[in-house]
Amino acid sequence: MRNSHEPLSLWPDRRELGLATDFYQLTMMAGYHASGLGESRATFELFVRKLPERRSYLVFAGLEQAIADILNLRITDEQIEYLSRLPQFRSIDAGWFESLRSLRFEGDVWSVSEGTVVFAGEPLVRVVAPAPQAQWLETLLIASLNYPTLVASKASRIVAAAQGRGVFDFGARRGHGPHAAFLAARASYLAGCVGTSHVESARLLDIPPIGTMAHSWIQSFDGEIEAFQAFVDCYGERSTLLVDTYETLEGIRRAAAIDPPIGAIRIDSGNLLDLSIQARAILDASNRAGTRIVASGDLDEYRIAELIEAGAPIDSFGVGTQMITSADAPALSMVYKLVELEGKGRMKLSEGKKTYPLAKQIHRVRDASGTILKDIVTQADEQTIGEPLLAPIVLNGKLVANTPSLETIRERARRDYESLPDRLRSFEPGAPFPIEYSDILQAEARRLGVC
Amino acid sequence: MRNSHEPLSLWPDRRELGLATDFYQLTMMAGYHASGLGESRATFELFVRKLPERRSYLVFAGLEQAIADILNLRITDEQIEYLSRLPQFRSIDAGWFESLRSLRFEGDVWSVSEGTVVFAGEPLVRVVAPAPQAQWLETLLIASLNYPTLVASKASRIVAAAQGRGVFDFGARRGHGPHAAFLAARASYLAGCVGTSHVESARLLDIPPIGTMAHSWIQSFDGEIEAFQAFVDCYGERSTLLVDTYETLEGIRRAAAIDPPIGAIRIDSGNLLDLSIQARAILDASNRAGTRIVASGDLDEYRIAELIEAGAPIDSFGVGTQMITSADAPALSMVYKLVELEGKGRMKLSEGKKTYPLAKQIHRVRDASGTILKDIVTQADEQTIGEPLLAPIVLNGKLVANTPSLETIRERARRDYESLPDRLRSFEPGAPFPIEYSDILQAEARRLGVC
Repeated sequence: MRNSHEPLSLWPDRRELGLATDFYQLTMMAGYHASGLGESRATFELFVRKLPERRSYLVFAGLEQAIADILNLRITDEQIEYLSRLPQFRSIDAGWFESLRSLRFEGDVWSVSEGTVVFAGEPLVRVVAPAPQAQWLETLLIASLNYPTLVASKASRIVAAAQGRGVFDFGARRGHGPHAAFLAARASYLAGCVGTSHVESARLLDIPPIGTMAHSWIQSFDGEIEAFQAFVDCYGERSTLLVDTYETLEGIRRAAAIDPPIGAIRIDSGNLLDLSIQARAILDASNRAGTRIVASGDLDEYRIAELIEAGAPIDSFGVGTQMITSADAPALSMVYKLVELEGKGRMKLSEGKKTYPLAKQIHRVRDASGTILKDIVTQADEQTIGEPLLAPIVLNGKLVANTPSLETIRERARRDYESLPDRLRSFEPGAPFPIEYSDILQAEARRLGVC
Repeated sequence: MRNSHEPLSLWPDRRELGLATDFYQLTMMAGYHASGLGESRATFELFVRKLPERRSYLVFAGLEQAIADILNLRITDEQIEYLSRLPQFRSIDAGWFESLRSLRFEGDVWSVSEGTVVFAGEPLVRVVAPAPQAQWLETLLIASLNYPTLVASKASRIVAAAQGRGVFDFGARRGHGPHAAFLAARASYLAGCVGTSHVESARLLDIPPIGTMAHSWIQSFDGEIEAFQAFVDCYGERSTLLVDTYETLEGIRRAAAIDPPIGAIRIDSGNLLDLSIQARAILDASNRAGTRIVASGDLDEYRIAELIEAGAPIDSFGVGTQMITSADAPALSMVYKLVELEGKGRMKLSEGKKTYPLAKQIHRVRDASGTILKDIVTQADEQTIGEPLLAPIVLNGKLVANTPSLETIRERARRDYESLPDRLRSFEPGAPFPIEYSDILQAEARRLGVC
């Protein structure tokens, strides 16, 4: 390696994601080829092994990006050249490397719809393809779904805590790398947030952009009043003024005195309950009943619920770090497991990691009012009660489903949340949601060696 | 918005990151323009407000990507068109939108080198530019540094816990979106990991790729022995066989019986201490002293230290979730604050969020053996003892520094870790590292209103 070089940006070209995978996928792909299993039809299913302790449900998200990338997946000549030079592949025949040039995903993807409320132990995505192809996309598929589902699930709780007050995604700088901001803006909006501070996401996804000033604006003027006035001269009644750069109560009084009356003040530090109560009083006394109060600063569902419970007159919340990192549950145990090969059930028995064999379907059972009662997991083509949740998205490598708009997904998430039983909407770990496995699945699992 | 559309991939084009920022940066940029501050020279500094509870030091990382993106930052015509249609900008004059077409970063960036051990409260990056430009890159800069620093810092602890045994990055699927895998592979390698499972990162960065088989390989054959043999037929002595798909001890016995002798076995579940001890005994008794033991499965520095302390004969560790999400500290309070404007010190006084004014430098003071004793933070051009840590990377928008190789950065991280005082290398929260602020800084802070 050279001792110095031009700075390298690690943004991948979206058309060159073919090696954005774990190395073992490639060793297995070459191995399937060498072992005559290259055309064996494999069924893999993606599911969450276990819910994080503080989650009673998940909001499924990230499918659209995953599908877009899978449809374009290919390995470039330069990437093949790299692989062919690796010592690990020394004994692999040239035919395999050659076959990578035309490799595309030509299989089927069935999936639950984005915005659907889902649980652990259910097949959320089913991939049916020649074993090497199914293996190839595992890492990218999990990485594309895992994080948006994590953020949408966290955002759903935060939005619920706000009880109708607006929640804005303010997390861009706190994401795990700059791409996370794009994924989180989308995931949090579909889960009920009303806007994002991340401009490019807002533009690409038609989400309302939100944000007005940082402390640096205030600091850039000789005094707070001058800073406020200069901003209001630009943005008039749309202005939100940040009041806590120096002395917060004084900042609130100054913001209340500005003409024209401003849209909102933002408080970003200190005791948000006391300050919002005092702010409301000052604003009302200054004939500024229409000026709203925005709060931010390390908020999450617990803090927001506490503030509302205590009567804080806050109109909307900007939520950053806790939502974009899903800080209390920063990882999700999403896995992708072989369940069928050439029509025969397959299962893994590793300690604590058992899986059900066979291609499956989820059937969601509701009561007359629409409340979700239970899910029944069956073999893919079994008939039973309830609404089937997995539908074909890609067949033989071609997109066959309409891609719903983000608004449609958001509406589904809203409806699904509202149809959850009360105990699952609680923030505390509740009774697990009942998932039944059909007799056929249970019999096959027993037959393959587990009871 | 249309009701359905082609699936959209949210990977940004790296040349179109100009709006990958918070909306308030843009409202402020337009505001500076309108208020006649568009050319005011601003100095911003990036620092970490507070170390996470379980971190005593950080390993600074992510600069190269940040610089690459900053040097290419621009706003496209399509993006400008989007902004000009936003109601928020209704009163902004056309000249501002026009000025965005040619906007480039033309300022200076000074920075600490990647791989350097750093602490809270120190200026890690200094940006000097016309206020709108400095504001523009804030979000992208923080998002580019925050996460790699988080991962490098976690990885440094995990590598230390392994006491010379190899640690591999296995996290790709658990990252916060598929881009995190690229950033984490680089950050964990520079902090001492010896390889990554993420192939494209390995290729782009010349990191050893690692990985052999998943459980699905074993499940794809009629029996475990057949699966082992088929793999070994391909990869010979380089094979690592995964032994816990069905019954782990039986898997180990089978792996020990395969010819030729294999490179390693991997245990991914169960009691890693007991299983590794039994595995070592079985392998040795089978004349397989050269076959190594790799362990994986939700490992972190605490678990690894425990295993080694208890005498587990594990030769290397695959670490995924805990490292790529920095699960015990998934966020870092990295901030970017205005400290000087047109040569005058600026500071913020918000409760619990005070900052020191003026452009600064860090001076690192070591004892005769090289151990780091303290850092002295001074005004940028003050003379004092110790080695200055901030150096110019970009001046007037042009790259002026050599970009060190990843190996050079890795070596710096290793040396810096070794020069830490013992108490900071402990995994438990230790005494905070002493940072002194020079008299000039303290006097200026007092003058601007705080003592």
